[in-house]
Amino acid sequence: MFKLHKTQGKARRGEFHTPHGVIQTPVFMNVGTQAAIKGALSADDLKNIHCQVELSNTYHLHLRPGSDVVKAMGGLHKFMNWDGPILTDSGGFQVFSLAGLRKIKEEGVTFASHIDGRKVFMGPEESMQVQSNLGSDIAMAFDECIENPSPRDYVEKSCARTTRWLERCKEELARLNSLPDTVNPGQVLFGINQGGVYEDIRIKHMQDIAKLDLPGYAIGGLAVGESTEDMYRIIDAVEPHMPVDKPRYLMGVGTPSNIIEAVARGVDFFDCVMPARNARHGHLYTWSSGTINIKNEKYKLDDSPIDPICDCPTCKSHSRAYLRHLFKADEMLAMRLAVQHNLHFYNTLMAQIREAIDNDTFDEFRQKWSGKIDKRNS
Amino acid sequence: MFKLHKTQGKARRGEFHTPHGVIQTPVFMNVGTQAAIKGALSADDLKNIHCQVELSNTYHLHLRPGSDVVKAMGGLHKFMNWDGPILTDSGGFQVFSLAGLRKIKEEGVTFASHIDGRKVFMGPEESMQVQSNLGSDIAMAFDECIENPSPRDYVEKSCARTTRWLERCKEELARLNSLPDTVNPGQVLFGINQGGVYEDIRIKHMQDIAKLDLPGYAIGGLAVGESTEDMYRIIDAVEPHMPVDKPRYLMGVGTPSNIIEAVARGVDFFDCVMPARNARHGHLYTWSSGTINIKNEKYKLDDSPIDPICDCPTCKSHSRAYLRHLFKADEMLAMRLAVQHNLHFYNTLMAQIREAIDNDTFDEFRQKWSGKIDKRNS
Repeated sequence: MFKLHKTQGKARRGEFHTPHGVIQTPVFMNVGTQAAIKGALSADDLKNIHCQVELSNTYHLHLRPGSDVVKAMGGLHKFMNWDGPILTDSGGFQVFSLAGLRKIKEEGVTFASHIDGRKVFMGPEESMQVQSNLGSDIAMAFDECIENPSPRDYVEKSCARTTRWLERCKEELARLNSLPDTVNPGQVLFGINQGGVYEDIRIKHMQDIAKLDLPGYAIGGLAVGESTEDMYRIIDAVEPHMPVDKPRYLMGVGTPSNIIEAVARGVDFFDCVMPARNARHGHLYTWSSGTINIKNEKYKLDDSPIDPICDCPTCKSHSRAYLRHLFKADEMLAMRLAVQHNLHFYNTLMAQIREAIDNDTFDEFRQKWSGKIDKRNS
Repeated sequence: MFKLHKTQGKARRGEFHTPHGVIQTPVFMNVGTQAAIKGALSADDLKNIHCQVELSNTYHLHLRPGSDVVKAMGGLHKFMNWDGPILTDSGGFQVFSLAGLRKIKEEGVTFASHIDGRKVFMGPEESMQVQSNLGSDIAMAFDECIENPSPRDYVEKSCARTTRWLERCKEELARLNSLPDTVNPGQVLFGINQGGVYEDIRIKHMQDIAKLDLPGYAIGGLAVGESTEDMYRIIDAVEPHMPVDKPRYLMGVGTPSNIIEAVARGVDFFDCVMPARNARHGHLYTWSSGTINIKNEKYKLDDSPIDPICDCPTCKSHSRAYLRHLFKADEMLAMRLAVQHNLHFYNTLMAQIREAIDNDTFDEFRQKWSGKIDKRNS
């Protein structure tokens, strides 16, 4: 299922096979939380910006429109008209970051919907049932995502429960995949490593979940309050205990530099809302001059594209001056053109990382770009 | 410049030549007030929905980003990346409908910007200068658009001034077109008929402005408070006094039925914000079941397209259930897909009207569709 083609140092060049196509890794997944990319991008646009994997959220789609609706419409691929690979987050992170009035028990979590406050219960089985209805290619384990820092004894207890939840997820997904009316019988489960910023808890938890021999493993609970140094330290600690022959997914990370640094530490999959969110605020990535703020006065009469060397649909057709005008005039088109550019930038960044590993030039690539692109230039 | 190919009753089938291509009439112009279509549609999307003419607004672009900016960027066509015909409204309507604290004198109008309240002066010369900077193919005369009903003596005085303003517009545009650095030297001017709901004032004004022998004439000041019957009555009264060999443009109108009825009364050009605005509220036009409200519960599990016989990009790729979900989830993509559908519907309506006139079947077309499409069906 996962083929590791090549390594340079710890950086890995591989491919992951799914029922909806092969994912070349390292890969950045483009986030479409509610079965739609923020900024009015359609599934067709995703193809034009070279998106490989679309990521949607179990929590959001469970609350609205309901996974029964998506299943009745033929699953998420058909519902949103995207025929490439889809990964669904388990809802764990959102239950702990978005929902209100949480109550955690061994069975699962009762929480209040962020939309209408209604009480909802979700445990490992429910999360798998929802993800099975959605029919994603990769389902994520239902876990507890704790904030950093959290007390050591709480983290230990939480991790043990997350392991027990993972066993239940595995069993439930196997059952669901064998049902005659399952949407995507080839759906696979990735486990999620937790443990806060405690290296020993992280390692112990990783060793425990590795025993379940799942098709992939994620590092969760990072980029939730800890420093960048802590994040890299935890990856360095956990990575040697992750199966070599399975893909590794660093959840919710990050800046272009974070991604380059995590690839250098052996990570294969990424996702982050940051490029789309930055785009919506007019902060656009360029290879030539770092991150620019397109709303800046200096772009008022600038008829060059956002990035002269970019071949995204936005840069091929529109000038900085036009983009700036659209932002100033509060036109929705500003969002779309900006998100399109930033997501294309991330997808291109990953393509260049893959090419660099292929050509044994990843060290040079890392040296050239790490810490550079994120720099605010105006 | 305008070729009248064929008539059926008063309905006219023609073509209008501009520096950016030939417009087949009757035509509906797609409104991009601030050099962008509401709902995040790009100029490329306009091509896919068979838009012939894009319409932008002098008032808005004068205030933001300023027509000097657009001129420096090569004019509106280059600025927004649309190489088809563009018509610009003169600002007259917006000055009288959007701006604050108006003061009208013979020279022009002083008003407060709706954006920041700053005092701005615009008269016929200023409007032409802005439109010349924008470089549209068709510039509209700067007129006073009075609300209906207005007192008879005020309407008479206002019309006389609008005629004097039109003479100044004509002279100023001729001067601007002869300047060496003009953006679009082939830009032409359309006059605008006013006169409220008074048939005799309308006719007298039309006769006065017809003498200026302009390349086209519009009927303005309708759909601003009067009844539909009054609107049709005024068109019926004015039309016999409009030059046969010039295109006629009914400004800001209207519903599909209004358009069919106005074509039947001899009108060639239309524009309206209604299809895009309706789309943004989820009200979508269909040939099969009138106007539907896509947010309705009954579309929750409906996997058919908005209109089964529509070949717009939205209907080709997305279901009613997905559209409904996007609206409920407040996703920007809802706006884009809905606006795309409704504008495509209007552009298709016009294509069918043209075909019907070509085939001498317009009377049947009118009988079949007038009053039908606007009907709310859910």
